[in-house]
Amino acid sequence: MNHFNFEDTICAITTGNELSAVAIIRISGNQSISIANSIFSKNITNVDSHTLHFGHIIDNSNIIDEVLVSVFKDNKSFTGEETIEISCHGSVYIQNKITQLLINKGCRLATAGEFTMRAFKNGKMDLSQAESVADLIASENKSSHQTALKQLRGGFSSKLQDLRQQLIDFASLIELELDFSEEDVEFANKKQFEDLLKKIKKELKKLIDSFKLGNALKNGIPVAILGAPNVGKSTLLNCLLNEEKAIVSKIAGTTRDAIEDTLNIEGYKFRFIDTAGIRKTNDVIENLGIKKTIKMANLADIILFIIDANRKIADQIQEIDNIKIKDKSKLLIVVNKIDLNHNNKNKIKESIYISAKENKGISLLKKKLLNCVSTKDISNHEIIVTNLRHYEELKLTLREINSILDGLKQDITSDLLAINTRQALFHLGSITGEVTTDTLLGNIFGKFCIGK
Amino acid sequence: MNHFNFEDTICAITTGNELSAVAIIRISGNQSISIANSIFSKNITNVDSHTLHFGHIIDNSNIIDEVLVSVFKDNKSFTGEETIEISCHGSVYIQNKITQLLINKGCRLATAGEFTMRAFKNGKMDLSQAESVADLIASENKSSHQTALKQLRGGFSSKLQDLRQQLIDFASLIELELDFSEEDVEFANKKQFEDLLKKIKKELKKLIDSFKLGNALKNGIPVAILGAPNVGKSTLLNCLLNEEKAIVSKIAGTTRDAIEDTLNIEGYKFRFIDTAGIRKTNDVIENLGIKKTIKMANLADIILFIIDANRKIADQIQEIDNIKIKDKSKLLIVVNKIDLNHNNKNKIKESIYISAKENKGISLLKKKLLNCVSTKDISNHEIIVTNLRHYEELKLTLREINSILDGLKQDITSDLLAINTRQALFHLGSITGEVTTDTLLGNIFGKFCIGK
Repeated sequence: MNHFNFEDTICAITTGNELSAVAIIRISGNQSISIANSIFSKNITNVDSHTLHFGHIIDNSNIIDEVLVSVFKDNKSFTGEETIEISCHGSVYIQNKITQLLINKGCRLATAGEFTMRAFKNGKMDLSQAESVADLIASENKSSHQTALKQLRGGFSSKLQDLRQQLIDFASLIELELDFSEEDVEFANKKQFEDLLKKIKKELKKLIDSFKLGNALKNGIPVAILGAPNVGKSTLLNCLLNEEKAIVSKIAGTTRDAIEDTLNIEGYKFRFIDTAGIRKTNDVIENLGIKKTIKMANLADIILFIIDANRKIADQIQEIDNIKIKDKSKLLIVVNKIDLNHNNKNKIKESIYISAKENKGISLLKKKLLNCVSTKDISNHEIIVTNLRHYEELKLTLREINSILDGLKQDITSDLLAINTRQALFHLGSITGEVTTDTLLGNIFGKFCIGK
Repeated sequence: MNHFNFEDTICAITTGNELSAVAIIRISGNQSISIANSIFSKNITNVDSHTLHFGHIIDNSNIIDEVLVSVFKDNKSFTGEETIEISCHGSVYIQNKITQLLINKGCRLATAGEFTMRAFKNGKMDLSQAESVADLIASENKSSHQTALKQLRGGFSSKLQDLRQQLIDFASLIELELDFSEEDVEFANKKQFEDLLKKIKKELKKLIDSFKLGNALKNGIPVAILGAPNVGKSTLLNCLLNEEKAIVSKIAGTTRDAIEDTLNIEGYKFRFIDTAGIRKTNDVIENLGIKKTIKMANLADIILFIIDANRKIADQIQEIDNIKIKDKSKLLIVVNKIDLNHNNKNKIKESIYISAKENKGISLLKKKLLNCVSTKDISNHEIIVTNLRHYEELKLTLREINSILDGLKQDITSDLLAINTRQALFHLGSITGEVTTDTLLGNIFGKFCIGK
């Protein structure tokens, strides 16, 4: 870790650096107390850890602010280092002035995520826990908050420790075989090997499978809104978004034809994809667009297929069969415009009747959407993987385990098995940080906000 | 103060309620510790004041966050009440979730400025100090920060206390005279009265005079940019603003013809007013606009009169004489477009040569602007009044003092003098809060941000 200097005492504004009633500036490193003493009206050298002190920040005998100073000693802090937190008035001028003063007195401005990186480096948390700090800060709904908190509290880490320990046990069995390969221990061990590996494989797969759900919980469960032109797709989207004030973001879609919007429904984030209208046409360009729409629908977890209550229902149902939806269990048929036609008797089972214009049936639609997020799924997964990096490393671990299983079947030599085992241990270890590189750490912590 | 309920325990997010590394939620009132105990994993009933405690926020056995809790007991807090501060991860979801939990457990959401209002109510600061808290938070440059801090630290308050005490002494002399009016004490006292009143008057005037400077420091020193059409007024403004990144705000001017922009130069805020070009014309409407421009220029503290280096200088100087500038000492002549004409020999004394287009001479111009803010003025005023309300009350006090002085000359009776004296005491007292009404408090604290 040579390009990270952990000897410096660092500082940063940990609150928003915007106008607010109160702001916090954090100092961490072995010079924290002596630097704080150089600008604080009281001497905090001999005070107890975890105590608060009212006084003034002073620059050349000019008072800058009245502040509260928190002292964390004996490495009992977030970073595991001597830490000072200055709680000052939230004027941007004051926040910047105090930060500048600290830098003049010998602090270095912390880089993004540097406080958390130090917490990792000082053994206060492992790498996956450190990553969950960023997820926790970014969490904007109940489900993403809970998965991040679970990860921070070490559920995922101890699961990985467990898997890793089993692999290490396996590795020692292999080493044993390497030592005594002349003797007749091999056959007895082979079954034991296989059982252990299958057990590890099963747990790895469970974790890998949880990622799809984890990713949906974190980034929003993708819901495609499909239907013919003018059935009211955009009206429905607006209706959903206007009713709930919890609109999180408006993202220009990855394709030119799609607009994405996210919406919180009872703590779950849904990501709605409004698509171009689908209809039979000979226009080559338009057909390309429709193909794209269908492709996107197939990638979504839920497809809302909107039909018009005032047009012939059977024809419209036929249209659904014409387009190629791979997994029809994802489909939710939504009959819109019931305000115009109350007498359509051809009720379709399992479909939802709404008027997006008059805001009718929308709460039922939301309920149906929530039902689609199998809450059983969530409680089934004790641990939910939400981080793409962890997912990739778990898949690489699984690949190595499969290689070992294949190797066992083909009776390959133990030394080759040992190579795969070491690789599997490497991938698992890089999740929790037993194995790290500067580049990896730079990538992970560089995405944090400054001040964390 | 019947419509303010000070019995409730209140809570609010005191940092920015936006995504950040850390956020602070403050609880104040006599239930603070018991409410905090109901959601915190540790019991903080018997801990010392000014201590920090790491633990979890818990909602029905679900962990919401890992937090640090600060405890302030024995009324040794900002508000003068039992206070708890929860330092949590800065996810907006978590901030709102904890606030919601506190409300469920019996807190009320604090209204704007309610923490500071309680500090005032509990005698932790007087009203002018409380008002300076808002100014301090809003301070965005060195000068506004210093005046607000001085006020918070009580300089203004003790000055007012002093004036008020002198008036009270005077009042008791009046009362004495009312008691013994039969006797011959009157004449001897009259001179003493007058001297005291003149002394008070002098100090009041000094404070009142400081407001113009204080207001300029707080809201920006007004600088009008004047000149004929196309001399480069807007180019100069853009040049000034683009070079400095510290543009604070863009305000649509009070008149249709003026654009205002503020700029920090070495800690002083200047408010630039770009005006319509001035020229001789018979157009009635245009002449009305020019009249307005000149009126605005006369209201400004500094007038930058821009002339064109490539046009006849003498003619342009003549134009300055034609327009009616009341105080010519405010004028700074700026010769623009020197990039086009380096050979203009008719240098005018005391003027600044620039090229707004090529960014030449701008730093000299800034230096000249800073010189105009007589720093002597600032140091001459021990106390600078920055608050419009204080200014108005000081003027009303002065009016009463003048009435008393007139009354003394006209030998009016002591009981009438006593009325004026009481009025003067009322106005002075309403600045520091010895005299308050619900409406006044509502007006003052309603302008604070939530959380302060």
